[in-house]
Amino acid sequence: MVEQETNEPRVKDISFLNTIKTVAIIGPSKKRGFMFVKSHADNFKGKAVYAVHPKLKEIPGFESVKVYPSLLDIPDQIDYVYISVPNSGILNVIDDCVKKGVKLASVFTSEFSDSGTQEGLELEKELLRRAKNKLRMIGPNGLGLYYPKLGLGWRTLFQKSFGKSNMKVGVVAQSGGLTNALIYTATYLGLEISKAFSFGNGADLDSVDLLHYLINDPETDIILSYLEGIKRGRGKKLKWILNQTRNNKPIVIVKGGQTDSGSKAILTHTASISGENKIWKVVFEQFNIIEVESLEQLLHIAYLIENYGFFELDNVAVLSGSGGYGVILTDLVEKAGMKVPAFSPDIQEKLDLLFGIAGTSPKNPLDPSAQVFNVNFMYKVIDLALSDKIIDGIIIDLPSFIFLPDDDARKGSNYESKMIEVLTLGHKHNKPLIANIIRANYPEDKERVSKKLRDKKIPVFGDPFEFIPLLPKISRYTKNRKTT
Amino acid sequence: MVEQETNEPRVKDISFLNTIKTVAIIGPSKKRGFMFVKSHADNFKGKAVYAVHPKLKEIPGFESVKVYPSLLDIPDQIDYVYISVPNSGILNVIDDCVKKGVKLASVFTSEFSDSGTQEGLELEKELLRRAKNKLRMIGPNGLGLYYPKLGLGWRTLFQKSFGKSNMKVGVVAQSGGLTNALIYTATYLGLEISKAFSFGNGADLDSVDLLHYLINDPETDIILSYLEGIKRGRGKKLKWILNQTRNNKPIVIVKGGQTDSGSKAILTHTASISGENKIWKVVFEQFNIIEVESLEQLLHIAYLIENYGFFELDNVAVLSGSGGYGVILTDLVEKAGMKVPAFSPDIQEKLDLLFGIAGTSPKNPLDPSAQVFNVNFMYKVIDLALSDKIIDGIIIDLPSFIFLPDDDARKGSNYESKMIEVLTLGHKHNKPLIANIIRANYPEDKERVSKKLRDKKIPVFGDPFEFIPLLPKISRYTKNRKTT
Repeated sequence: MVEQETNEPRVKDISFLNTIKTVAIIGPSKKRGFMFVKSHADNFKGKAVYAVHPKLKEIPGFESVKVYPSLLDIPDQIDYVYISVPNSGILNVIDDCVKKGVKLASVFTSEFSDSGTQEGLELEKELLRRAKNKLRMIGPNGLGLYYPKLGLGWRTLFQKSFGKSNMKVGVVAQSGGLTNALIYTATYLGLEISKAFSFGNGADLDSVDLLHYLINDPETDIILSYLEGIKRGRGKKLKWILNQTRNNKPIVIVKGGQTDSGSKAILTHTASISGENKIWKVVFEQFNIIEVESLEQLLHIAYLIENYGFFELDNVAVLSGSGGYGVILTDLVEKAGMKVPAFSPDIQEKLDLLFGIAGTSPKNPLDPSAQVFNVNFMYKVIDLALSDKIIDGIIIDLPSFIFLPDDDARKGSNYESKMIEVLTLGHKHNKPLIANIIRANYPEDKERVSKKLRDKKIPVFGDPFEFIPLLPKISRYTKNRKTT
Repeated sequence: MVEQETNEPRVKDISFLNTIKTVAIIGPSKKRGFMFVKSHADNFKGKAVYAVHPKLKEIPGFESVKVYPSLLDIPDQIDYVYISVPNSGILNVIDDCVKKGVKLASVFTSEFSDSGTQEGLELEKELLRRAKNKLRMIGPNGLGLYYPKLGLGWRTLFQKSFGKSNMKVGVVAQSGGLTNALIYTATYLGLEISKAFSFGNGADLDSVDLLHYLINDPETDIILSYLEGIKRGRGKKLKWILNQTRNNKPIVIVKGGQTDSGSKAILTHTASISGENKIWKVVFEQFNIIEVESLEQLLHIAYLIENYGFFELDNVAVLSGSGGYGVILTDLVEKAGMKVPAFSPDIQEKLDLLFGIAGTSPKNPLDPSAQVFNVNFMYKVIDLALSDKIIDGIIIDLPSFIFLPDDDARKGSNYESKMIEVLTLGHKHNKPLIANIIRANYPEDKERVSKKLRDKKIPVFGDPFEFIPLLPKISRYTKNRKTT
């Protein structure tokens, strides 16, 4: 679909988002348990939530939400609407929105260009025509706007929170399911969402507009995006926008559709995948975008930066109470392009004095063996390693069994909480300390300890492949940010 | 250290393991809470456990274990000893073992060749001389023998079990900590250990002998090994042994020390890493060894084979309730060298009829969207996909939120247990069905569902990188097993 870029405003302005005072849910659905009414009614921090339904007089369970047969009947200004009517009735709704002076609509309704039919395509074009560039739209065929600070969004708003984050995460993704999974995972990792946009077909606001918005949004510190592609004619604008933020806000992207079958599965399918991939690669490099390969990696990049800010990790210390696991970690770190170097002579001398217990190794990778049960020893070793000028950070394998709540005499009292304190040493030295607790451990022990670590802003993983491949990506971003 | 292979017996025979009737713990240590006495006393299924200590008259808490000042004082034949005396006293203990006719010793004591000193090296040689090829030894500097069926081993024996496995896993590893982590993780995944050997310095029984043993052990179905290298002069024997099992028992190996720093951290460090790596690569290919890169991958290979036997997975169906996550999975599957092909025309026709709901996609990757809440629909879709002749298996992303214990009206009653039944369809079709539940989900829901899936022998992961890279390794093994 070729669009005439010159006919569009240079920027589709949605900077009014934080001033939304009134919301109307158009087409509340009993089949879905009125979930969009529920989420907005329970959470919206503005003035009022209304509903529009041709027959219903009230929404069962939400009697405080006033229902009107038409948007035009509501005796109040409406800033934002959430539309989930069947697509046969959508054009009238859009007309009403324009008449009413609504600024923004999330259009959940599907079966437009996503249906792959000519009628669907035409209907989407008509949708855009009717909106007249006066009503801005997110969608159709997307979950729309998720803005937890104002209480706008869907049922993901009801999840329990796992903590506050320094950095607020902005999300741009086509897919609703993926956006949902991303929000759940972010919350689990202690990352707060500033705004998430699930923009579906992107008939009006598309990835380029929404990236532009988040780049300029003072409430957003890092942007995570799942992109399937951009519409023809939008490349220049994307580059212009990315150029604005090169030294500013990190953008992490998974590009969907990089293989034959992956490409066929998406709307913006092109015949030349390898050519397409090359173009994206150039764009990512040129504008210092962090490219990753999965939803989990998107989030883990944010998780690491949230906990330690931007960092360059070239020389890594490795510590494992298991000699073998330490060697495996060392191999993986070096295969990923980092180094596990010898400590500086003065530090090594001190470590040699400290160790000297049978079965341990004071060299990098450090192997405290059963001394992992000795918190004072662990504190001194990690403190020394991180005080070494040539060491940029440390990866610590915590053997899966040390957090079993048993009566092991070697542990002393309050072993677990003392050990967690030891692991805050990364913050003392302002160098990343990353903990790996093998996932296999009794899951309740792993979860308990992981939660405590996350609360102390210590990133914890359960498998080396979850984080080691991401470290050089963050280092590269940090280096390029400085030099460009 | 060059050894004279001709002076050794061709095979160091430890086939008597399952006939061990009596055990003596030599050097029980109060500092370690008498843990080796405890584990053997509580678990050993044979005739008797004894302890040897120069001063103690009894072991506090284990009054039923008879203590003798010397091994020679025990009025019983002793088949197996667990030695954890300080290394200054070890030679006398070994002499006593030979005199007493002990067949096998696990030597936990360290500071031999592992110390890196000339004295340590000499002491290890002397150890071997004193054993006179009459006493077989595992160690020194290792956790020794773990044989849960007989109740021989250390505290890992006390862990709760997560289920029975069809395949019994044999383990050969130098490192004690790694062996421990491996046993914990195996248990968590529902894999039973036949025997695990943590052989430390491998002064007597080394990786080659122990692999030989497990290859010929009828109680072992798959062998997992962390290898740092083999002693000079042992290459021929290793190849001879591996050749015996080429079409028989799968062997999965992590080779530690593949990088500069990884290599420096191990005992068998060689100057030419790249040459060494090439030799290992040839051996792995020649003898159809599955090579992996981490402890977790070792276990996940066994976990997948345990659940579906050997399989060849070339053409994969992908199903995700999130369009975007489905595209990501498809890209990862194809990047790993498999295909996500179009379904056969007859199957596609049936799927087209079944779908036809807004926002879904009946093509591969399948996108049921909110129909994931419809168990009958899910059953039919997965059943159809797996009945396609060209499809070898299916990867299913279960959106992180579907297992929240809430009152979502779309789910109907008993959604969770019905959905788990649906996921047994892989077994009906005898094709791998692999579930991925994003780890981010409320951990208790993920754990509960994962446990139920494991009980049904359905492998479940939490991140695509945990299993996708492993699938081609299993396929290659299966193909080579047939053709060689």
